[in-house]
Amino acid sequence: MKFIYSIVCCFLFQTAFAQDYSDKITLVIHGGAGTITRANMTPEKEKAYREALNTALQKGYAILKKGGTSLQAVEAAIMVMEDSPLFNAGKGAVFTNEGKNELDAAIMEGNTLKAGAIAGVTTIKNPIRGAIAVMEKSPHVLMAGKGADQFAKEQGLEIVDPAYFYTEARFKALQKAKEQEKIELDHSENKKEIKKAPKTGYSKDEDLIFTEGKKFGTVGCVALDKFGNLTAGTSTGGMTNKKYGRVGDAPIIGAGTYANNTTCAVSATGHGEFFIRSVVAYDISSLMEYKGLTVKEAADEVVMKKLVERGGEGGVIALDRNGNIAMPFNSEGMYRGFIKSDGKGEVMIYKDEK
Amino acid sequence: MKFIYSIVCCFLFQTAFAQDYSDKITLVIHGGAGTITRANMTPEKEKAYREALNTALQKGYAILKKGGTSLQAVEAAIMVMEDSPLFNAGKGAVFTNEGKNELDAAIMEGNTLKAGAIAGVTTIKNPIRGAIAVMEKSPHVLMAGKGADQFAKEQGLEIVDPAYFYTEARFKALQKAKEQEKIELDHSENKKEIKKAPKTGYSKDEDLIFTEGKKFGTVGCVALDKFGNLTAGTSTGGMTNKKYGRVGDAPIIGAGTYANNTTCAVSATGHGEFFIRSVVAYDISSLMEYKGLTVKEAADEVVMKKLVERGGEGGVIALDRNGNIAMPFNSEGMYRGFIKSDGKGEVMIYKDEK
Repeated sequence: MKFIYSIVCCFLFQTAFAQDYSDKITLVIHGGAGTITRANMTPEKEKAYREALNTALQKGYAILKKGGTSLQAVEAAIMVMEDSPLFNAGKGAVFTNEGKNELDAAIMEGNTLKAGAIAGVTTIKNPIRGAIAVMEKSPHVLMAGKGADQFAKEQGLEIVDPAYFYTEARFKALQKAKEQEKIELDHSENKKEIKKAPKTGYSKDEDLIFTEGKKFGTVGCVALDKFGNLTAGTSTGGMTNKKYGRVGDAPIIGAGTYANNTTCAVSATGHGEFFIRSVVAYDISSLMEYKGLTVKEAADEVVMKKLVERGGEGGVIALDRNGNIAMPFNSEGMYRGFIKSDGKGEVMIYKDEK
Repeated sequence: MKFIYSIVCCFLFQTAFAQDYSDKITLVIHGGAGTITRANMTPEKEKAYREALNTALQKGYAILKKGGTSLQAVEAAIMVMEDSPLFNAGKGAVFTNEGKNELDAAIMEGNTLKAGAIAGVTTIKNPIRGAIAVMEKSPHVLMAGKGADQFAKEQGLEIVDPAYFYTEARFKALQKAKEQEKIELDHSENKKEIKKAPKTGYSKDEDLIFTEGKKFGTVGCVALDKFGNLTAGTSTGGMTNKKYGRVGDAPIIGAGTYANNTTCAVSATGHGEFFIRSVVAYDISSLMEYKGLTVKEAADEVVMKKLVERGGEGGVIALDRNGNIAMPFNSEGMYRGFIKSDGKGEVMIYKDEK
C-alpha cells in the first residue's frame, strides 16, 4: 500500500513540476557542406534544395508540434533527405570505387545516452531507421556490412535492391572521379587538382551534381522535444570513389553524432577523417560540460578554430536544451535550416546568409 | 640562402632545446578485464598469463630503451599478445555466431593526432599492423570488412587463412554459448543467467577458457618514448557469439583508443557498447584538458564513477607525457602491467594487486 502511495505521489510530483519545453521545441538540419557557392549554382537547383530542406523541416516540426519525441522528429526529417536524390544519403548516395552505394547512419538520444549506428549497408532503404533499430532492438551500438543489412531485414525494415540507390548523376560523378584516376578525397589540395583536370564535356547540370560528389555530402538533424529531450541523427553515402570499406565520421558516436541532455545534440558534415581524429561532436559537448562554454562558443571553438588549424573542412549543427542553435562551418557553404515553436522554417545555403 | 640559414638555425635550436624524455620512457599494457578472480584461476594458467604479459612488456621496452618510437613499441607489445592464444586478439580471438573470427584494431599517435583502425577483418595475422597501415599508408582512419583485408594485402602485410585464428578452447566457448541459446553479452545480468545455466561437463581448464570468453577480451598498449611522444593501440576479437557484424569500442577513435601529447594516451577494455556511448578514451583526455585533472583523477572519474553509474563494466590504461600511469577497472580483475626506464616490469591480474 505504502509502495503504491509512493508511486502515485511520485507521478503527481513529476507531472506538476516536470518542465514543459513546448515553447522551446526546435529542429535543425543540414544537408552537407563544401564548395557551395552562388557561382556553382543554377536558380533551379537552388530552388530544389531550398524546397527539399523546407520539407524536411516541416515534417520534423509537425511531429514536435503535436507532442512527438525528438527521436521521431529526427527520423522523419532525415528520411525526407534520404529519399531525395539531391543529397548524398539514401537515394542519391555517391558510388564506391566498385560502383556500389554503401551507406552509414547513426542516432543518439540525449536523455538515455543510448545510441545506434550502421556502416557500409547496401539494402536498407532508410539507413537512419537501421540505426534506430540497432539502438532500440539490439544490445549493440554499431553494426557493419552484411550483418547490419540482415539485422534490418529481420527487424522488418524496408529492404530495397541495391539498384534503388542508383542515380545517373552520381554514377557519372564516379566515372569522372575514376577518369581523374584518384580517390575523391574532398580536401583542398585535391580540389585544386580537380580544378586543373581537363574538362570532360559534361553539361553544367552534370557538373553541378558532380560538385555534389566533391562536397561532404551528409545529412543530419538535431531536435529538442516538449519533454526537454535532445536527439541527434546523421546519414550519409560517404565519399565518391571510396575504397577498402572506408568508414567516415557519420556512424561514429562522438565524432559525427552525439547527444546528451546535459549539454547538446550535434550532427557533423565534413572531411570525415579529420572529424574522427578530433572527436568533433563529443568535443563540443565536453567544452560545454567541463569549461562552461555556450553551445555557440563550443561549436565555434571546434569548427572554426581547432578543425581549421588541423586542416579539417566542414561544419556542424548543434542544439542545447534551451533551444539555442549553432551552425558553424568553415567551408564555402552548408545546406542548413532550423525551425522553432512558431513554425517558421528558415533555410540557408551560402556563407553570407544569416 | 636566407632560407637555408633559417632552417639550419631552426634545427640547431630544436636539437639544443628539445626536451629529452629518456628517463621517462614508459609502456603500459592490458590483456582484458572481467570476471578474473583467484577462484577462477589455476596456478599454471596464472603463470602463463604473467609470462605472456611480461614478454609483451619487455618487447616494447627494448624498443623504447634503444631509442625507438612509442608507435614501434606499442606495435611490438600488442603483437606479442595477438600471437598468444591466451588473449582475445589475433590468434585466440573469440568466434562469431557464424563460427568466424572477426578482428578489430586501432592505433593513434599523440604528436600528430593521426589514427588508423580496422573492423571486422578475417585474414590479417596482426590486426594492429593493419590499423597502422591504414594510418600511415592511406588517407583514411577506419576501414571495415573485406575492403580492409584487401588493403592490408596490397600493403604487403602478413595474410593468413582465417583458420589460423582457430583455437579449440574458443570454439568450444562458442558451442557453449550457443547451447545457452543467447548472445554472449558480457554484462552482469547475463553473467547471472550463465551461472544458472546447467553444467555442460567441460573440464576445469575448458571452463576457464570459456570464462575468457565471458571476459572483455581485448589487448591494448600505451607508451611514451624518449621524444616525448605518446601512442595508444588496441586489438580485439570482440564478443563470443557476436552477430550482425557487431563492432565494439576498440576500433572507435575516442571510445576504445585515443592519444594526444597534450593530455594522455588511453586504451580501453570492457563492455564496448557502454564505452562507445560514453566516448571513454576522449572523455579522459577532455577532463585533463578542460578541467585540469591529472591522468589518474580523469581515468578514475570516467571508469570508477561515470561508467559504474551507467552500468558499463571494464577498465582502461592511461599514460601522460610525464610518465604518470592510471590503470583503473571496475570489474573483478584486469590483466595489466607496466614498465619504466629502469626496465623492471610489473604485472598484475587481481584487484588486490597494486
